[in-house]
Amino acid sequence: MSNHISGWDDTIVALATPTGIGAIGVIRLSGPKAIDIANKLFPGKDLHKQKTHTIHVGFLKEDQVDLDEVVISLYKNPKSYTGEDVVEIGCHGSPYVQQQVIQACIRKGARLAKAGEFTQRAFLNGKLDLTQAEAVADIISSNTEASQRTALHNMRGGFSVVLRELRENLIQFSALIELELDFSQEDVEFADREKFHQLIDEATIVTRELLQSFQLGNVIKHGVSVAIIGKPNAGKSTLLNTLLNENRAIVSEIAGTTRDTVEEVINIDGILFRLIDTAGIREHSTDVIELIGIEKTREKIKQSDEVIYLFDVNTETVDDIAVAEKLIRETNQNFILVGNKADLLGEDKAKEKFGISEAVFISAKGLLHIDLLKEKLVNKVVQGNIHTENTIITNTRHYEALQQVGKSLTDIKNGLDNHISGDLLALDIRRCLHYISEITGDISNEHVLDYIFSKFCIGK
Amino acid sequence: MSNHISGWDDTIVALATPTGIGAIGVIRLSGPKAIDIANKLFPGKDLHKQKTHTIHVGFLKEDQVDLDEVVISLYKNPKSYTGEDVVEIGCHGSPYVQQQVIQACIRKGARLAKAGEFTQRAFLNGKLDLTQAEAVADIISSNTEASQRTALHNMRGGFSVVLRELRENLIQFSALIELELDFSQEDVEFADREKFHQLIDEATIVTRELLQSFQLGNVIKHGVSVAIIGKPNAGKSTLLNTLLNENRAIVSEIAGTTRDTVEEVINIDGILFRLIDTAGIREHSTDVIELIGIEKTREKIKQSDEVIYLFDVNTETVDDIAVAEKLIRETNQNFILVGNKADLLGEDKAKEKFGISEAVFISAKGLLHIDLLKEKLVNKVVQGNIHTENTIITNTRHYEALQQVGKSLTDIKNGLDNHISGDLLALDIRRCLHYISEITGDISNEHVLDYIFSKFCIGK
Repeated sequence: MSNHISGWDDTIVALATPTGIGAIGVIRLSGPKAIDIANKLFPGKDLHKQKTHTIHVGFLKEDQVDLDEVVISLYKNPKSYTGEDVVEIGCHGSPYVQQQVIQACIRKGARLAKAGEFTQRAFLNGKLDLTQAEAVADIISSNTEASQRTALHNMRGGFSVVLRELRENLIQFSALIELELDFSQEDVEFADREKFHQLIDEATIVTRELLQSFQLGNVIKHGVSVAIIGKPNAGKSTLLNTLLNENRAIVSEIAGTTRDTVEEVINIDGILFRLIDTAGIREHSTDVIELIGIEKTREKIKQSDEVIYLFDVNTETVDDIAVAEKLIRETNQNFILVGNKADLLGEDKAKEKFGISEAVFISAKGLLHIDLLKEKLVNKVVQGNIHTENTIITNTRHYEALQQVGKSLTDIKNGLDNHISGDLLALDIRRCLHYISEITGDISNEHVLDYIFSKFCIGK
Repeated sequence: MSNHISGWDDTIVALATPTGIGAIGVIRLSGPKAIDIANKLFPGKDLHKQKTHTIHVGFLKEDQVDLDEVVISLYKNPKSYTGEDVVEIGCHGSPYVQQQVIQACIRKGARLAKAGEFTQRAFLNGKLDLTQAEAVADIISSNTEASQRTALHNMRGGFSVVLRELRENLIQFSALIELELDFSQEDVEFADREKFHQLIDEATIVTRELLQSFQLGNVIKHGVSVAIIGKPNAGKSTLLNTLLNENRAIVSEIAGTTRDTVEEVINIDGILFRLIDTAGIREHSTDVIELIGIEKTREKIKQSDEVIYLFDVNTETVDDIAVAEKLIRETNQNFILVGNKADLLGEDKAKEKFGISEAVFISAKGLLHIDLLKEKLVNKVVQGNIHTENTIITNTRHYEALQQVGKSLTDIKNGLDNHISGDLLALDIRRCLHYISEITGDISNEHVLDYIFSKFCIGK
């Protein structure tokens, strides 16, 4: 933790709870003067004399004027989230009152915290490594079981454990190689090349698995966009409503998020599916493909991760399906063929008529085989079960650094195979270590940190 | 507190912080099983063995599955907001995670709290009287210094103190009257009529002052709507922008509030002014009065508490102002005449030209005498200074009950003047006491309570 700055002399303050009206709001102070500042506003008790992890109820006053009746939670350095003295002021849930309290804290010596600054201090004080700090942001934005569990696993250090083991092995070997260099005149090999080969093979497998998990990680974190396309009267709206009724996700509105497309979000087995542009699909339900034409449909398909082509088994022909299939295949997109209104024609007859083994025959209105369709959707995405206890990469920064780790490992392996000299090998190992350390934050620069924490909300 | 229900056997749970993404969210449990339920989800420690007002950090788990890393604040009966055992769970600020935690609490035996139910329990357990409980809601929705202070004053029992004194005096006198009735054969007067007369006179003054404060209370609580009207090019938009630039209020969005009119809100000296329908005024700035006509303007005037008639001192004549003044006076509305662009004509010349002593001459563009206008606006509304340390009635329920108190006091006074019999006097006194007790909640019925607390947010 060579480049960790420590010992800020400023104290930061911010609202830690969402803005808006609620029963209570919590304002967080962190820094060497946190208790001093709270004391100046809380005449009831000397907080310096109180134990850590205690709660104190009373009136907050500034210059004899009551601000609010509050609950003060006291966390003394180092037993706090940031590792500094932390005071949390629970006040009434009026944005106006909260602003008054924050302004009073600022007048008494605090400054407004930047986004993510509390967690940044926790990281710089060694309370969390960088992947854990990033997982905190992921937990806050988690909106499904899978995203919550993955983030929690990483916040508890799941990913760090894997990386740390890899790192320690590499460091050990690297030390032996460097030792060899010191004795380079004598042509000795302290480092067991065979064993190291094995280590690199293992590390390569781990890295590959982590990289592969990123696709799933992305799905877990961001959800899967699905376009339901098909001819007019294929039953797209009915299918959409059927899916929505059973699985509507509780998705919060995230301040600052712009939604380019109108979408309905559903949660199936802990995975978010975003049914994109469905308002448009609904509105123009009579013109998709036929009226607006091929180009519009192709665009819609490209926008999405997954496509459902819905057809009416009663009115469409095998040739119709072939045309649609060709159109979708041209976009290189994943798709599921779904035959609707199968209860009218009869399921067996529908299967016979179309003879497409991978198609699902349903009735959106009659609620026939909706479960099968959902299963198919989930399997398409997950390709197996989600084991959120496994370490799953959800972060693009980690993914990119891991790709570099993977490349370095390949270079090391090639070097070993070609019996390159110890000093060149040591260089490759150092490069590999560099990228691993970048992920955990053992090596970090201010710009990277600022960028990472700027994506947090203020107050965290 | 005869009809206070006590000793619920159910435990309630709700999110106490606003919904949405934030650093943290707080979930509140209250009731006899609050600690039991928290214990079932918090394997780290036995919370029963912990002291009240302590904080405990650890993982929340349900059936071996991690829910979140949380901070638990413990408040043991009776030292809590509700007077019951209260556990507050501070979890990460993801709405999804919060829902999971709430659902887990429900599965372990809690039920979802109704709106205001925590405060209702606090009231029924005698932690607050009804005016104090109502002031809690007022604090939460306060958005100016005046509304915050008034609510805080009432939450601390300011209003209750006044009423309680009145009530005790009445009860004392009533007791003496009732004693007289027991000895009615003997024609004695235990109760000093002279002294009582004095008491009633004093009570009448207090009640009248409280009733009069309601107008100010309303202003403090809801703000004052102001229509800026005037001919095209009088400079309405410029004035609006000038006022907005200096005094824009931080007004939170309240979920569920519908705004019938578009309005800009500014804060002058702690009072909210709502400049109503200004978007409309802006859009139609060329047609107010002249094009849309008298009827539309009259409507706009009627909608507002205060009217600013803005005129261009350079182009308008004394007759123009007289026409406008007549129009406004017909609506019985308060208004301020404001002569704009006075810097072009010269202030003295403008005064001379119009000779209206109560008019304010400004330049919205040149920022001339804007302070004077603001002062005039505030004085029109407040008619003197706001002493928020004084008890101010802001609640319609209180106002209506106080009107009944006032009427009863008049009846008592008339009864005394007419030397009516003690039993009839006792009846009037009892009626007066009834209305006082209704305000403080010493007498209350379930419907009234349900109504009052239903206006709270859930979690309070």
